[in-house]
Amino acid sequence: MSIITLITDFGQKDGYLGAMKGVIWSIAPNASIADITHEVEPQNVFEAALILERTAPFFPAGTIHVAVVDPGVGTNRRPLLAQVGDRYFVGPDNGLVSLWLSKAQARRESSRFIHLNRPEFWLASISSSFHGRDIFAPTAAHLANGALFEAFGVEIADPVRLALPQPERTAYGWRAAILHIDRFGNLDSNLSAEHLSGQQVDALYIHGVRIPGLSKAFGDRPNGELTAIINSSGNLEIARVNGNAAQFINARVSDAIEVHIR
Amino acid sequence: MSIITLITDFGQKDGYLGAMKGVIWSIAPNASIADITHEVEPQNVFEAALILERTAPFFPAGTIHVAVVDPGVGTNRRPLLAQVGDRYFVGPDNGLVSLWLSKAQARRESSRFIHLNRPEFWLASISSSFHGRDIFAPTAAHLANGALFEAFGVEIADPVRLALPQPERTAYGWRAAILHIDRFGNLDSNLSAEHLSGQQVDALYIHGVRIPGLSKAFGDRPNGELTAIINSSGNLEIARVNGNAAQFINARVSDAIEVHIR
Amino acid sequence: MSIITLITDFGQKDGYLGAMKGVIWSIAPNASIADITHEVEPQNVFEAALILERTAPFFPAGTIHVAVVDPGVGTNRRPLLAQVGDRYFVGPDNGLVSLWLSKAQARRESSRFIHLNRPEFWLASISSSFHGRDIFAPTAAHLANGALFEAFGVEIADPVRLALPQPERTAYGWRAAILHIDRFGNLDSNLSAEHLSGQQVDALYIHGVRIPGLSKAFGDRPNGELTAIINSSGNLEIARVNGNAAQFINARVSDAIEVHIR
Repeated sequence: MSIITLITDFGQKDGYLGAMKGVIWSIAPNASIADITHEVEPQNVFEAALILERTAPFFPAGTIHVAVVDPGVGTNRRPLLAQVGDRYFVGPDNGLVSLWLSKAQARRESSRFIHLNRPEFWLASISSSFHGRDIFAPTAAHLANGALFEAFGVEIADPVRLALPQPERTAYGWRAAILHIDRFGNLDSNLSAEHLSGQQVDALYIHGVRIPGLSKAFGDRPNGELTAIINSSGNLEIARVNGNAAQFINARVSDAIEVHIR
Repeated sequence: MSIITLITDFGQKDGYLGAMKGVIWSIAPNASIADITHEVEPQNVFEAALILERTAPFFPAGTIHVAVVDPGVGTNRRPLLAQVGDRYFVGPDNGLVSLWLSKAQARRESSRFIHLNRPEFWLASISSSFHGRDIFAPTAAHLANGALFEAFGVEIADPVRLALPQPERTAYGWRAAILHIDRFGNLDSNLSAEHLSGQQVDALYIHGVRIPGLSKAFGDRPNGELTAIINSSGNLEIARVNGNAAQFINARVSDAIEVHIR
Repeated sequence: MSIITLITDFGQKDGYLGAMKGVIWSIAPNASIADITHEVEPQNVFEAALILERTAPFFPAGTIHVAVVDPGVGTNRRPLLAQVGDRYFVGPDNGLVSLWLSKAQARRESSRFIHLNRPEFWLASISSSFHGRDIFAPTAAHLANGALFEAFGVEIADPVRLALPQPERTAYGWRAAILHIDRFGNLDSNLSAEHLSGQQVDALYIHGVRIPGLSKAFGDRPNGELTAIINSSGNLEIARVNGNAAQFINARVSDAIEVHIR
């Protein structure tokens, strides 16, 4: 059984997903389909790339991840198939796969890239605005059916890369940045447990609010207070106990978090 | 393997979908279920009918499409089973299937209709407010299990039809109307590529804004500008490059688009 | 084939669900996964417990219901596995299973409870903020694969219980309370058809508005009027015909509904 996952900015109200699932099951009736998210902010390629990087490692070998956030649909941006370790990516070549790819390469996983240019794997008629349905869904389905990776197009070596903003060293410790704000208003940052390895966090400052060091769990600080933990992705995260940190301090993506170490 | 799809206005917060999926898998454990959308505007039968018409053709033969937008639930509106070509519809007889049906009939696909009136295919207890769970989900599941189409009730010939508003010819070309506004704020219209066949679009006007002709892709016009393309449903669509056209010009469903042809 | 359902307050934008599905299918590739809802209000354990109680009975025997609304994640609240009749619950021991459990016990279904404490059934690395992915998803998947109920930990007898607010008798009839407001703005209450058995409802009062008795269906009262029906869960529900009752009268959970009986 093959698994195909979907990450898009399509939302769920218009039926675009439905069309993609219909195309997949028309070609590969036994594929299992997992919606990862369809609520990526419209055209926010970085957000989708981050979610893909965070979720792909939890799927089994052979999983085919389709991601479609595609402001360049219908222009000359390339459609891409990638092998990342023992998993696959299908989507536009605009950086969607790149954060996952960088992590995988850091773990010394191999990778290969195909510029999709064989229309025999696509729908018969290609629209200029919905390659998710017309190109990427059928490509994923044919791959799930066992078509050879090399058959889908011509190998390339230069997929588009996004830069992940890095935390900076400061006189007092680190200056981190918010990467993502989740439904709970939790503030996920670019400072990882590895960055902090061997260091003791004394205090954190965000929007002028002081947080006294790292906690083990959300519930270890009083109700309504800000807290800082190492989150499920291994990164520094600011949260509000039983509340919404982003709303509380009006935080936004790329805002700074000052981390003082002892 | 049978595929059952779901289109509703139930939203996703209350678990109504969960109950429908439980009923389906209690009867037909091997059916695959695809959510198409549950974010139809409450009671907006037309919107659901349009989404069904746009997505059904992408599913394989034999697919059973359940659509439940049902302001008349519990009254004497009929519960309906329809065969449209080689696919099926289950839901209230209030026009939900009718836009898909009209397209299918224009393609000379055959159709048949059953007034569902055999309670042996329903749940044992029928509520007055949730026929999606009590009547339509079990009907779809029994159909997926191979029950005969004719067994579900009495054949009828007059399912409720919705009118699709047609574009008008004008002295300068066409007056189209917005049919649907999607998550991106793209404005889908009732003017199709067939209407424009052999004609050259000179300019389009919407809410006083001029758009200089049709583009091939969203990205062919400058950032932030309005653009007009033929969309993935084969219709004229107004979009804003990397933006939201509906918010930009405060557009609403049924607003006019004037199309000037050369 | 095993069915695993998911109820969370994770929303759908961040990919948390995707990670859970990846973990489930990595361990139990043949499990079917049904999303029941991920739009529970953040940290609202009661709402999730109510949705679980309403939907679980519609799933087949053997279904494994995973519910994760978990403000105490990472603290010493217990992770729980429960058998409720012939179905299962996996999630934090904070009352999520308790409303379903009370209904099941009232139907004389048996129940058993396990404090999950065998890390061999969990992911190798346990975060302090995402036990849905690290503990509950793998537990459900191993259970779906046939691991013995008793193997997951130590049996306990005192799972956390939530109280369901009960309707009060008054001089005129009943004082009910709103339990849940759904997407349509329908007001679901704690007064059941059993409470009203043998009684004739004369009128209902909510926020000073009078409703003249119970109707059979939403559509039996004029457009825009408030109506009262017995809903699909067997409870008194206030709705607005083709409208949103909650917005119309600014109703909130726990507001009172006065029911006058003849």
